[in-house]
Amino acid sequence: MVLVKKLVLDVLKPHQPNALEFCKALAEVGDNYSVNLMVIAVDEKTESVQIVVEAPSIDFDALQAVINKMGASLHSIDEVEVNNPSVDT
Amino acid sequence: MVLVKKLVLDVLKPHQPNALEFCKALAEVGDNYSVNLMVIAVDEKTESVQIVVEAPSIDFDALQAVINKMGASLHSIDEVEVNNPSVDT
Amino acid sequence: MVLVKKLVLDVLKPHQPNALEFCKALAEVGDNYSVNLMVIAVDEKTESVQIVVEAPSIDFDALQAVINKMGASLHSIDEVEVNNPSVDT
Amino acid sequence: MVLVKKLVLDVLKPHQPNALEFCKALAEVGDNYSVNLMVIAVDEKTESVQIVVEAPSIDFDALQAVINKMGASLHSIDEVEVNNPSVDT
Amino acid sequence: MVLVKKLVLDVLKPHQPNALEFCKALAEVGDNYSVNLMVIAVDEKTESVQIVVEAPSIDFDALQAVINKMGASLHSIDEVEVNNPSVDT
Amino acid sequence: MVLVKKLVLDVLKPHQPNALEFCKALAEVGDNYSVNLMVIAVDEKTESVQIVVEAPSIDFDALQAVINKMGASLHSIDEVEVNNPSVDT
Amino acid sequence: MVLVKKLVLDVLKPHQPNALEFCKALAEVGDNYSVNLMVIAVDEKTESVQIVVEAPSIDFDALQAVINKMGASLHSIDEVEVNNPSVDT
Repeated sequence: MVLVKKLVLDVLKPHQPNALEFCKALAEVGDNYSVNLMVIAVDEKTESVQIVVEAPSIDFDALQAVINKMGASLHSIDEVEVNNPSVDT
Repeated sequence: MVLVKKLVLDVLKPHQPNALEFCKALAEVGDNYSVNLMVIAVDEKTESVQIVVEAPSIDFDALQAVINKMGASLHSIDEVEVNNPSVDT
Repeated sequence: MVLVKKLVLDVLKPHQPNALEFCKALAEVGDNYSVNLMVIAVDEKTESVQIVVEAPSIDFDALQAVINKMGASLHSIDEVEVNNPSVDT
Repeated sequence: MVLVKKLVLDVLKPHQPNALEFCKALAEVGDNYSVNLMVIAVDEKTESVQIVVEAPSIDFDALQAVINKMGASLHSIDEVEVNNPSVDT
Repeated sequence: MVLVKKLVLDVLKPHQPNALEFCKALAEVGDNYSVNLMVIAVDEKTESVQIVVEAPSIDFDALQAVINKMGASLHSIDEVEVNNPSVDT
Repeated sequence: MVLVKKLVLDVLKPHQPNALEFCKALAEVGDNYSVNLMVIAVDEKTESVQIVVEAPSIDFDALQAVINKMGASLHSIDEVEVNNPSVDT
Repeated sequence: MVLVKKLVLDVLKPHQPNALEFCKALAEVGDNYSVNLMVIAVDEKTESVQIVVEAPSIDFDALQAVINKMGASLHSIDEVEVNNPSVDT
């Protein structure tokens, strides 16, 4: 089974919830999720953020649901890293 | 529970307390806090500083209270890093 | 026997399947395949992606078959790394 | 107790004492002080120097006293690094 | 005896054999040859490639023979690394 | 006692003695001296060189005497690194 | 005794002997010599090359003799690294 190890997401979010709350909500998707968020650009009502998620096995659909639930939208997937471990590893 | 490991804050502060005192006050928020402050721009009455806080578990509300108490204001959260450790770690 | 260790491919793909699904399909070609995909440019109907595949022994023909099957086309091979291990290693 | 680990100071000094003597005097403030001085700009009577002080626990007031005693003036504190170790460390 | 450890070659090749086949043929020159090929520029009928060969002891004449046999020409040797090990090593 | 660990010197030297002889003479000042010399600019009769001296404890006066004896002049001290080890180290 | 550990030489050479032969001849000066040659500029009859020689103890006079014997000329010594080991090391 192919595991998703890393995703770099370009997300447009409202100012609230703030970057910290947003980040925490994404990390709550699963154990051992690390989430790094950097603010790229700030507009009157929204901000563009780059989000890097790393985990042993990322659940993309769950991440996307959380993003939408917080009023934000996934603009693009900018980087993907996957690995197909051998069965007996 | 999601732990906040790192915050990069953009803060506008008056010249007094100076960068050193400001930094110390933030580190007093908790054990094992490391705080790095860099002066970005200096104005007549204020200076813009970038503050990087790293700790095993950062208490953001406590940091913000200290910032306000010293007459400074949090301009933006520029980077956040969180981690959701597995329960049995 | 010469083993192909790394390939950097320049691929033009339709927006669907998205970057994540595309990446997963490539990694399913074999055990211990690592695939990194970065979006380079986005057009109305297509996107240019750079794909880095690393594996103990890459099967290029299988990769190309998967790329074509997903409606994408291999634009060029931009980097190749091969190794000719000694027989008794 | 919060420990000051690193200070980056912007200092304006007369040509005498020279960079070497200046540096040595600062390091004499305490055991295990490391001091790095770089000349940034040279004027007719003065030179701007960047001084990086690292020590297990920097005594800022003592450093400033030495700077003043040598006819130099602290122009600004450009970077501060502090740490608040846990009590039982 | 002086051993050639690394060669960086600037080669002009026809599009066929492709970069992957070209690279494999070079690595077949000897055991433990690692060959990295990067496409630098693409023309209508040819492409300029930079080839980095590393091996415990590179046989330059054999490499050049393979290059010529594939219809390509060695434009220049851009970097050489040699080592003269002591006899009792 | 404060030890001088590193000095970066800007020196103007005649073409003779050449860079190699110049460098050797400086290293002869003491055991475990490492000296790196880079030619920065070349004039008709002189050349500007940057000299980096590293040693467990640099004797600056001895270095300066050697520089002068070879017909060169110390233009400036561009970087200094000192350390004040604790007595019981 | 001061040992020469590294030399960076700027050399003007004819096209023949080629870079590889040139490099080998320099490495034959002594055991454990590593020689790296990079072509910097190519003219009709000559090429400028930067040569980095590293060895436990470089014999500069021998290197220069080899350079001259191959019809090339040492343009300048661009970097020197020497070390004066303590006697009992």
